[in-house]
Amino acid sequence: MGNQYKLADLAQKLDARLEGDGESLITHIAPLDKAQAGAITFLESSAYKKHLAATHATAVILAAEHAAECPVNKVIVANPYLAYAKISSLFDPAPRVSVGIHATTVLGRNYSFGKDIAVAAHCVIGDRVVLGNGVEIHANCVIGDDVVIGDNTKLYPHVTLYHGVKIGKNAILHSGVVVGSDGFGMANDNGQWEKIHQLGSVVIGDEVELGANTTIDRGALEDTIIENGVKIDNQVQIAHNVRIGAYTAIAGCVGIAGSTKIGKYCMIGGGVGINGHIEITDRVIVTGMSAVGKSITTPGIYASGIPAMPHRAWWRVLNRMSQLEELIRRVNALEQKK
Amino acid sequence: MGNQYKLADLAQKLDARLEGDGESLITHIAPLDKAQAGAITFLESSAYKKHLAATHATAVILAAEHAAECPVNKVIVANPYLAYAKISSLFDPAPRVSVGIHATTVLGRNYSFGKDIAVAAHCVIGDRVVLGNGVEIHANCVIGDDVVIGDNTKLYPHVTLYHGVKIGKNAILHSGVVVGSDGFGMANDNGQWEKIHQLGSVVIGDEVELGANTTIDRGALEDTIIENGVKIDNQVQIAHNVRIGAYTAIAGCVGIAGSTKIGKYCMIGGGVGINGHIEITDRVIVTGMSAVGKSITTPGIYASGIPAMPHRAWWRVLNRMSQLEELIRRVNALEQKK
Amino acid sequence: MGNQYKLADLAQKLDARLEGDGESLITHIAPLDKAQAGAITFLESSAYKKHLAATHATAVILAAEHAAECPVNKVIVANPYLAYAKISSLFDPAPRVSVGIHATTVLGRNYSFGKDIAVAAHCVIGDRVVLGNGVEIHANCVIGDDVVIGDNTKLYPHVTLYHGVKIGKNAILHSGVVVGSDGFGMANDNGQWEKIHQLGSVVIGDEVELGANTTIDRGALEDTIIENGVKIDNQVQIAHNVRIGAYTAIAGCVGIAGSTKIGKYCMIGGGVGINGHIEITDRVIVTGMSAVGKSITTPGIYASGIPAMPHRAWWRVLNRMSQLEELIRRVNALEQKK
Repeated sequence: MGNQYKLADLAQKLDARLEGDGESLITHIAPLDKAQAGAITFLESSAYKKHLAATHATAVILAAEHAAECPVNKVIVANPYLAYAKISSLFDPAPRVSVGIHATTVLGRNYSFGKDIAVAAHCVIGDRVVLGNGVEIHANCVIGDDVVIGDNTKLYPHVTLYHGVKIGKNAILHSGVVVGSDGFGMANDNGQWEKIHQLGSVVIGDEVELGANTTIDRGALEDTIIENGVKIDNQVQIAHNVRIGAYTAIAGCVGIAGSTKIGKYCMIGGGVGINGHIEITDRVIVTGMSAVGKSITTPGIYASGIPAMPHRAWWRVLNRMSQLEELIRRVNALEQKK
Repeated sequence: MGNQYKLADLAQKLDARLEGDGESLITHIAPLDKAQAGAITFLESSAYKKHLAATHATAVILAAEHAAECPVNKVIVANPYLAYAKISSLFDPAPRVSVGIHATTVLGRNYSFGKDIAVAAHCVIGDRVVLGNGVEIHANCVIGDDVVIGDNTKLYPHVTLYHGVKIGKNAILHSGVVVGSDGFGMANDNGQWEKIHQLGSVVIGDEVELGANTTIDRGALEDTIIENGVKIDNQVQIAHNVRIGAYTAIAGCVGIAGSTKIGKYCMIGGGVGINGHIEITDRVIVTGMSAVGKSITTPGIYASGIPAMPHRAWWRVLNRMSQLEELIRRVNALEQKK
Repeated sequence: MGNQYKLADLAQKLDARLEGDGESLITHIAPLDKAQAGAITFLESSAYKKHLAATHATAVILAAEHAAECPVNKVIVANPYLAYAKISSLFDPAPRVSVGIHATTVLGRNYSFGKDIAVAAHCVIGDRVVLGNGVEIHANCVIGDDVVIGDNTKLYPHVTLYHGVKIGKNAILHSGVVVGSDGFGMANDNGQWEKIHQLGSVVIGDEVELGANTTIDRGALEDTIIENGVKIDNQVQIAHNVRIGAYTAIAGCVGIAGSTKIGKYCMIGGGVGINGHIEITDRVIVTGMSAVGKSITTPGIYASGIPAMPHRAWWRVLNRMSQLEELIRRVNALEQKK
């Protein structure tokens, strides 16, 4: 990995109180129960406190309340998990694309590139594309005409941006992401389907992250919009004219149907399906594998996923569910006999 | 966008009755409530009629029954939504690949190409590939040996067609589509898995559209088949030896297991899972997030998705479901005491 | 297809007892009810026995108990389906990439390649990559720095391996697979999200197969691990720090959340969602479209999927479910009146 830091420097970056030897060298981050010399680790919550006394880490990031029990150097902060996140980038060995445009990449006409652009091999970039300063594009990406990408945004290999897509600053698009493909629009003509050409585009804000193989369709007449700070996991499907509010997080395998608006600060669990043409207000949590059919107007936690059980027990539940109507009639009859 | 049309010409293309100024220039399509001068818009249904009187559009496509209330030029048709679809292509600014084969594309041997083929940069095309007239292949596509593609079919960037796949005319394959990957076939050998090589292929009809990152596996011994006019949204998985009947529409995130046959004119909602080795007859609608376990022999609407509710209410439902068996026993006991 | 074999040679490969003409030439495999001259077929189970008497195949692979009813050459084995799997590779016409590195492929520095490496056009291979003997990489793949791939592993077009990923021997990765993308890790900072850089990697064992567009994220601090012989279908999402035990099979569209451990010899049905931070023991089967919320400690079959029914019937079920709480109160009241 290579990178190493003095513990005092890490503590300073975190505005943390350091108790111990600030000259200690930190070479990597490790989990509390597996950390060895050279590692910094963190105590996220009391649930892991059992591992604290025996840790071999060089330093532990933790809250003041746990400091007394820590046998090694202490980096004391209010939120250890957030502090871990903040230093994680320092130890990230992920290679960067070299600044410059690789000779095998094919460029269109009339592009406008900022400083320190890095474009790897075998990319294809269309006409009138605008790339901000420090944009990093990994190998084999395809960027359509009139695309705009903000400063320091990173595209991993095999990203496709259709024509006219706009991406903000400091965004990360993982491999296989497709942005701006046609929304699923068509009109029925005596049983056959007439395609509705999708004339809108996609606008993605700053600090957005899109997971591997996630897809976002362009709008039919207006744009599909992903606001600032939205974080989307792998294999999520976002249909045309959806709007996702700022700082909402969406876990893997979610599907969101057309024209739905999701508020800010929401959290959507894995495998959730969300109906089209509805609105979900701010600060809604939907737990994994639920199906959202109607608008949600009150913040809170919503669910409809059913936990798996032994299949014979589940068959009995399904069977009893089918008898419910009859059961209600029988209770009605019992009540009338009184 | 650039394209503009006289209103009279648009009306003629639609076989519509025009009331108003046929010389008006139309430059784009916009929603009824947001349209400004230069726009044509449409009144899809009475639900949107409230926006009609105040529209700033240059023209409105609508049914005869709403014409009296329209303050601007009127394009009167039986099905305004279908009429909108029909003119949507005229205003589509999506760039086309230039005719010719880009110098960076790698061609195999013994290919057979029609007229006006357009192949963008960094594609790889195998041996004995047949491309019809007007085929358009965007950047970085990979086309295996012995693939056949019909006239005017379009592949967006990063499409993969494995060897031997056949695609009809006027089809559209969006980015990240994979057709012809191996079906998930294997035989158990004392706990370990012996791969069953997949010796069939995939045959896709005319006018088919496949959404971004959709996957269609090749058949085990015979072919997986997608009939004419089928429309498939993003991130749909179609397993080996499935057959999808003509004009069926499949929304995003659907999974269809092996050897299942789906009829014509069906509509499968988003996130639906369909079991293997079953048959679904023509004109079946499955609503979103449902699980189809058995064959469906009667046309109609089928469902099993559960709408999300506040999670405490849902926990109570789950808890009551687990008490159902006991409840039935208690009602039995009450009835016997009579 | 081209390949043809003497029946006696096929029987010998299978350690089978041959009854009939060993000189017969077999040119392909076909299903029992459609096989013609030149085909070998198989009788998988008694369910298909009705087609046996009328088969036109040149030979049938079957169990001894069915041999008497077979009108043509017989290849008698204990497990006909497994025998079919074993000979399926002989008749597979899938083209192989030519040995050598295509001139358009871009190589990094300090790589270490074994014998008979085959790399197709427009691939990009990073620094310090290690490829074992006979590795076959189809067109447009991107392989990050420090990746290690074992002998005879095959990557189909458009596979992405991020830096540091390790793949074993004899593995198959289908098109659109992404391995090593960032896990979905972030810490909340007053509503906004701070990215947790993902410092682990992914380690994939021998004989693993990954279906088209499947994604496997790299670990946060330690590695995501896929053990030997695991078979994963298309569009499966495996989050960071998951561990999948040897010989487990996972059908299409499954999502597995972070840090979950799945045992050996499990079978996970299509569309299943599995919660994070849980453990599933060995030899667990989860049926399609189920949601696994908690750890499973006992081998067996688990389920929670609901089969679709006509939508009016389903609405009644949902309506009755919402009345359950009231129904239980009514039964309580009836019992107290006794």
